[in-house]
Amino acid sequence: MIKKNFADLRIGDKSIFEKTITEADIFAFTGICGDFNPLHVSKTFAKNSMFKGRVAHGALVAGLIDYTLTDIVGLGGVHISQFCRFKAPVKIGDTITVESELVDKNPEKNRLKIKSTLKNQDGVIVLTGEAEAMLPE
Amino acid sequence: MIKKNFADLRIGDKSIFEKTITEADIFAFTGICGDFNPLHVSKTFAKNSMFKGRVAHGALVAGLIDYTLTDIVGLGGVHISQFCRFKAPVKIGDTITVESELVDKNPEKNRLKIKSTLKNQDGVIVLTGEAEAMLPE
Repeated sequence: MIKKNFADLRIGDKSIFEKTITEADIFAFTGICGDFNPLHVSKTFAKNSMFKGRVAHGALVAGLIDYTLTDIVGLGGVHISQFCRFKAPVKIGDTITVESELVDKNPEKNRLKIKSTLKNQDGVIVLTGEAEAMLPE
Repeated sequence: MIKKNFADLRIGDKSIFEKTITEADIFAFTGICGDFNPLHVSKTFAKNSMFKGRVAHGALVAGLIDYTLTDIVGLGGVHISQFCRFKAPVKIGDTITVESELVDKNPEKNRLKIKSTLKNQDGVIVLTGEAEAMLPE
């Protein structure tokens, strides 16, 4: 990882992260967060739902943004806020590509704004996000 | 879990979830999301940082909200959006209490708004959040 300062950061800096979502991801995340919503953990319930199958927790999918934030902000970067809109379900076996871009920087306040778009293997947008981050003090 | 309809949901409905954050949580989450920011995974780096020790990923802490959303919205509830402000670090061994409250409901649009406050064992607010959710169709 690269330690960065404000001079290193340019509006338009991008980072891409790609990962296939597995059943193991969903059950590990369920154990962390305690959300046993059957849409995530029951094959039978989920098959009969509007999604026609198990879907990943929105918060799990949102977590995929983290890699790109650390990549853009650099070593020791700190996450200040995050907005996420969950636009389409993510199913087991889907490959999610996160593309994040630095859209604003404010050296006086030590604040960076990063927008993210997450798509599945078919190019469908599954999540859009906006983060605030800061460089380590 | 209880299957709910709009008549079951009252403004002011609350759910509480409490969990101690472990080293295992952080490393499992790192494996899911790929964010190896040394603030989360390096004892040595984190000790010399502004936080004086490893901290949980913000997205991990945000995930703790999920249990309370499923509890309030009921069986098969769907997460539409989430805003989170990370206000203080969460360290290994911290016990986090999530308190979420239904603050708005719109049966015509099938939308619910839920506010969350997460505190540590000392009563320090570590995260505030606002979610939109919907009942299963």
